[in-house]
Amino acid sequence: MQFIPMQRKDNRLLAQLRPLSLQFGFQHHPLGSVLMGFGHTRVLCSVSVEHSVPRWMKEQNQPGGWITAEYQMLPGATAQRTEREVMRGKLSGRSAEIQRLIGRSLRAVVDLNQLPGLTLHVDCDVIDADGGTRCAAITGASLALECAVRKLLQQGVLTESPLKDRVAAVSVGLLSGQVLLDLCYEEDSAADVDMNVVMTAGGRFVELQGSGEEASFSEAELGYLLNTARCGIQEIFAFAEEALRDAE
Amino acid sequence: MQFIPMQRKDNRLLAQLRPLSLQFGFQHHPLGSVLMGFGHTRVLCSVSVEHSVPRWMKEQNQPGGWITAEYQMLPGATAQRTEREVMRGKLSGRSAEIQRLIGRSLRAVVDLNQLPGLTLHVDCDVIDADGGTRCAAITGASLALECAVRKLLQQGVLTESPLKDRVAAVSVGLLSGQVLLDLCYEEDSAADVDMNVVMTAGGRFVELQGSGEEASFSEAELGYLLNTARCGIQEIFAFAEEALRDAE
Amino acid sequence: MQFIPMQRKDNRLLAQLRPLSLQFGFQHHPLGSVLMGFGHTRVLCSVSVEHSVPRWMKEQNQPGGWITAEYQMLPGATAQRTEREVMRGKLSGRSAEIQRLIGRSLRAVVDLNQLPGLTLHVDCDVIDADGGTRCAAITGASLALECAVRKLLQQGVLTESPLKDRVAAVSVGLLSGQVLLDLCYEEDSAADVDMNVVMTAGGRFVELQGSGEEASFSEAELGYLLNTARCGIQEIFAFAEEALRDAE
Amino acid sequence: MQFIPMQRKDNRLLAQLRPLSLQFGFQHHPLGSVLMGFGHTRVLCSVSVEHSVPRWMKEQNQPGGWITAEYQMLPGATAQRTEREVMRGKLSGRSAEIQRLIGRSLRAVVDLNQLPGLTLHVDCDVIDADGGTRCAAITGASLALECAVRKLLQQGVLTESPLKDRVAAVSVGLLSGQVLLDLCYEEDSAADVDMNVVMTAGGRFVELQGSGEEASFSEAELGYLLNTARCGIQEIFAFAEEALRDAE
Amino acid sequence: MQFIPMQRKDNRLLAQLRPLSLQFGFQHHPLGSVLMGFGHTRVLCSVSVEHSVPRWMKEQNQPGGWITAEYQMLPGATAQRTEREVMRGKLSGRSAEIQRLIGRSLRAVVDLNQLPGLTLHVDCDVIDADGGTRCAAITGASLALECAVRKLLQQGVLTESPLKDRVAAVSVGLLSGQVLLDLCYEEDSAADVDMNVVMTAGGRFVELQGSGEEASFSEAELGYLLNTARCGIQEIFAFAEEALRDAE
Amino acid sequence: MQFIPMQRKDNRLLAQLRPLSLQFGFQHHPLGSVLMGFGHTRVLCSVSVEHSVPRWMKEQNQPGGWITAEYQMLPGATAQRTEREVMRGKLSGRSAEIQRLIGRSLRAVVDLNQLPGLTLHVDCDVIDADGGTRCAAITGASLALECAVRKLLQQGVLTESPLKDRVAAVSVGLLSGQVLLDLCYEEDSAADVDMNVVMTAGGRFVELQGSGEEASFSEAELGYLLNTARCGIQEIFAFAEEALRDAE
Repeated sequence: MQFIPMQRKDNRLLAQLRPLSLQFGFQHHPLGSVLMGFGHTRVLCSVSVEHSVPRWMKEQNQPGGWITAEYQMLPGATAQRTEREVMRGKLSGRSAEIQRLIGRSLRAVVDLNQLPGLTLHVDCDVIDADGGTRCAAITGASLALECAVRKLLQQGVLTESPLKDRVAAVSVGLLSGQVLLDLCYEEDSAADVDMNVVMTAGGRFVELQGSGEEASFSEAELGYLLNTARCGIQEIFAFAEEALRDAE
Repeated sequence: MQFIPMQRKDNRLLAQLRPLSLQFGFQHHPLGSVLMGFGHTRVLCSVSVEHSVPRWMKEQNQPGGWITAEYQMLPGATAQRTEREVMRGKLSGRSAEIQRLIGRSLRAVVDLNQLPGLTLHVDCDVIDADGGTRCAAITGASLALECAVRKLLQQGVLTESPLKDRVAAVSVGLLSGQVLLDLCYEEDSAADVDMNVVMTAGGRFVELQGSGEEASFSEAELGYLLNTARCGIQEIFAFAEEALRDAE
Repeated sequence: MQFIPMQRKDNRLLAQLRPLSLQFGFQHHPLGSVLMGFGHTRVLCSVSVEHSVPRWMKEQNQPGGWITAEYQMLPGATAQRTEREVMRGKLSGRSAEIQRLIGRSLRAVVDLNQLPGLTLHVDCDVIDADGGTRCAAITGASLALECAVRKLLQQGVLTESPLKDRVAAVSVGLLSGQVLLDLCYEEDSAADVDMNVVMTAGGRFVELQGSGEEASFSEAELGYLLNTARCGIQEIFAFAEEALRDAE
Repeated sequence: MQFIPMQRKDNRLLAQLRPLSLQFGFQHHPLGSVLMGFGHTRVLCSVSVEHSVPRWMKEQNQPGGWITAEYQMLPGATAQRTEREVMRGKLSGRSAEIQRLIGRSLRAVVDLNQLPGLTLHVDCDVIDADGGTRCAAITGASLALECAVRKLLQQGVLTESPLKDRVAAVSVGLLSGQVLLDLCYEEDSAADVDMNVVMTAGGRFVELQGSGEEASFSEAELGYLLNTARCGIQEIFAFAEEALRDAE
Repeated sequence: MQFIPMQRKDNRLLAQLRPLSLQFGFQHHPLGSVLMGFGHTRVLCSVSVEHSVPRWMKEQNQPGGWITAEYQMLPGATAQRTEREVMRGKLSGRSAEIQRLIGRSLRAVVDLNQLPGLTLHVDCDVIDADGGTRCAAITGASLALECAVRKLLQQGVLTESPLKDRVAAVSVGLLSGQVLLDLCYEEDSAADVDMNVVMTAGGRFVELQGSGEEASFSEAELGYLLNTARCGIQEIFAFAEEALRDAE
Repeated sequence: MQFIPMQRKDNRLLAQLRPLSLQFGFQHHPLGSVLMGFGHTRVLCSVSVEHSVPRWMKEQNQPGGWITAEYQMLPGATAQRTEREVMRGKLSGRSAEIQRLIGRSLRAVVDLNQLPGLTLHVDCDVIDADGGTRCAAITGASLALECAVRKLLQQGVLTESPLKDRVAAVSVGLLSGQVLLDLCYEEDSAADVDMNVVMTAGGRFVELQGSGEEASFSEAELGYLLNTARCGIQEIFAFAEEALRDAE
């Protein structure tokens, strides 16, 4: 792999994140609601509580609670309007896959036994899409979850926080032999390899999804990708920490 | 009908609107995008263009273009989380009814012949719901449409504006014998009669939908309801005009 | 608005109803079953009882009973065969809207507390469609409901009638500046403004739905429309009363 | 098999049909429309024309035309209201099976080459169900088809009749060792063996569907069943012929 | 009907079966699992048990148990790939009809009272289709059921066998005036009359489904068809008996 | 991470594959059809050709061809019968995700430009499920694809092979601090981290999907997981090569 300097569309360095933005309390009713921005990509992440658990948990007499996520693209989020999935009567494969990923990522840092009889619903609605929507969704959802838990503790619904850690996610990719961090839509479409990395604030991997669409990658390239992702995620955690501190 | 002064939850007068808010350009990609607020109710209204007309127009060789609307409640918009309609595989009757209303309201003030070969998609996504979401949606959609047309004229896609007028909507209701303007959710749930009025800036009716859920209303009450709605709508137009001027 | 005498297709006066027809007991099993005709438009309205209430009522521990309506066009009811909605797997927006309207109209004149633990299902199936199907459906459904309640009283299932009044409906419209009563399909398609009015026998409004499809209407025009509708509905009630008397 | 005289609920003989009834032109728009009655069972059978053929015929460049049927139970047709299939979003297996049977039965007596570029849609809507609805549907549909063809000949859309014969159908069953003709609902539910026989006026079999639900039948019993059906169908043809003559 | 010797594609005699094949225990988990072959047609038939009965049985307080079947074509089973039904969101009419036939055929030889509180699910998945898939499915399902019952007796879940007899099925058809046994796909497509016969080992009929697609058949032809089917089914039973004996 | 020797249920070593099995030509009609076994897990993988490309390719005038995959669990594949997805009217999120993974994995080693105007449909139907079904599906699909391409070359449909490499997949997991290769269902359910690795015969990564369900993993653990997977995949390729040689 060769490192010829490559010019990114927005003049970013190869391993530079897009500007991050974060607005707390965007929706009125949810326990936690965050409008998370990775550059032009903006995802509304909200957490609502239901005082009940899914049927399969009841049937299996499973103790504790549950966290589940849903993901959706608003029609106007994309350059060419995206048809609503309800109009075709079912979730697309892509949305199904992403919302399963968000759910797993959050459950990895939550002690479900500390949510007795509760289901936390995490809704991620993409307002503007410019690449990396699933990563912004996971990152925003983790923060909205933190706000929601804080509120449940204040309300006395929970007496102890079920959160064991925080998660964030970023995309990395291989394009013309270069490793890029936090790809925008145009880069993402052109990339040979696309990888989404979800990590805890403690530096452990939660999810790793690398795909070579009509391409493949070597072990060395995997190493570069992971290192780049790790650095990006650390920056995101630093940003989030500060934002949360300001928000209190 | 008796006029005993009644205390509204937020100390409003009977015929007083909630504070209006308006943010232009909320979404990045659509031609026009407005975040419209009627008090706590906030609806994101965006207009996208498609260079094609619906199949039924092609089949009937109908000239001109089309405007169609879709309406959806985000899950976190309500005090108790609303299930996504895609999860049950179909639009609810309520959503279907509302989006047909929005579409008709807009088409009433547009010369479809001035949109040759184009479809304008209007998406109304309710961010926060506190009563009156369909009225906020119609009002916001009319403004987003105006922004979209302005952009299409600038881009040279249109050479003449198809807009004949502007529309806005407001709800009125009968509660304990009193006529209320712009009902919040709590008032709306308790109202004996609920009416949505859509009017043009020129003072003509476009849509009138009055329902007595387990109740009915007299001709005199209808008169009071319509007068109250008319005043409210005039205020909304005044607010919109100013906001549009500022936005230019 | 100008009153140039206009020739209607079937030589009716502007404010003249089409011939009304009414056949009781059309279906064998339902408690009440009426074949209601407004000219060529004929709707089969039947009422069946279920000894149970909808799940949402049980969950909310709501007392009393419920009335719900369904509306459907038989494929052969229209000049060009209408595709069955089951073939596309879902109710059309139009049908959803109409059946909600029928349900609300009936509930407005029923004391649901007098239907403890019962659900009345009202089925409106359009046999022949020539405009005004929703109005014929509401009018026929109200009469079928009356027959059904009579039978439930005879059977001792009910001891007191839950019916507070009777409802009927009629369409009015604006076409070339003229107010027309009870529009046939051809008139309805050409009308600038289309309004459906549901009233009680006691002269109160239950539902009012006026739409200007690509048009609007003034306050004065609204007045003419409402007066015309009121007269038409009074005639319908007179006809129904006589028919019911004959049927006993 | 033993022939102990058995009393049928309505005092019919074992091999006696229920009273037949036939009303032509029941629906206004279809080319042919028949309300067919087998005792309390009544099915509305209507035939509409579409000037086009199904996509699979076009794709296979198949000449001629097509006949297709749809079958549906109105909710109020049964003692306990039947839920509409559109509400569950899909046709039941039973309806799918019956409408395929009706379509095949009609196509057996039609020369599809004599319907160039046309699709005939046959709609069978059960108004009242008391056993034998599929047989009444086939019989009524064959007559409605005859009316429709007559009209298409008059209109000059067809120059030659595509009808090679007429079909009719009847049910027979085995109940407590007795062969019964034209079973009502109660008999049908209790029968050990249920058989539907579709024959041409020329005395040939078109469809034969015999089922032992939790039972079976011998070759001798099959013989009795077929003979009984044959006689019943001859009576039905005699009735239909007379009715058609009267209708002209 | 004339008996000119006809050459079958695979040199079979008119009344000759294709080679039968049978593999027990094809799937690992089901109680009984049989890969049944009628020539190139191969159907995987498996029986699983559920310790519960369908909701309608519970609601009607019906004693005993239930047997239900599902039928599906694997996409690669046909010369031209068959689209999966899940992709269109619903079962085809054809599949619905066949799985109802399989279920009825099996229930005809089972004493459901001897299956207290159990549901046996029979899954028939067509691996290779070359005509006669429903007959192979019924035959294989009956054998898989026998294996499943044997296992339930061994496990002590059942103490007495609910099986009253065994069923098998074969297709017969009329092609150019000849009666053919066990039609392959090519013959089936060309046949004027197609009949599926399900019989018990005891020689009684369980199901009889004869269809003339755009054709009909006389009583004499019916006789020939049934005799041919009877002989074929006897051979199938002989084969099955031997295979079961070997399998023990 | 500690390496205390752990006993696997089937006495395998931690880094030992289950016995592999491979049967070519399992289905009759498809171009390539492989029954792939990883221990008790068996997946039927078949490849069919369609002489056309998906609509989106036509609309975008994209040259070349396409490969798409579908994945499904047969109901009897699991210890407790799995409900068919068609019965709920839609693909599960899990199936949608897996079939997208299979499709991407295959496209990574195919030059789609060498498939002009063709779509290859890959069907993966799980006969028996005991963990690792998606890995067995990818591995089997790659081999079925190879057979299919060989046949298309023989038939002259293709003149040059579009295959750039071969892919195979294996699962690895972390369970009680140990790295396990090729997890069976029981191990998979208990694992803290589950990773699926898809590689080319040339040793490059195609897909990497690691998930910590309610857990996470360190960089060192990731290294162990990848090394173990790499070794397992090399063994699979060796087995496949031999099997293909035997099959010729």
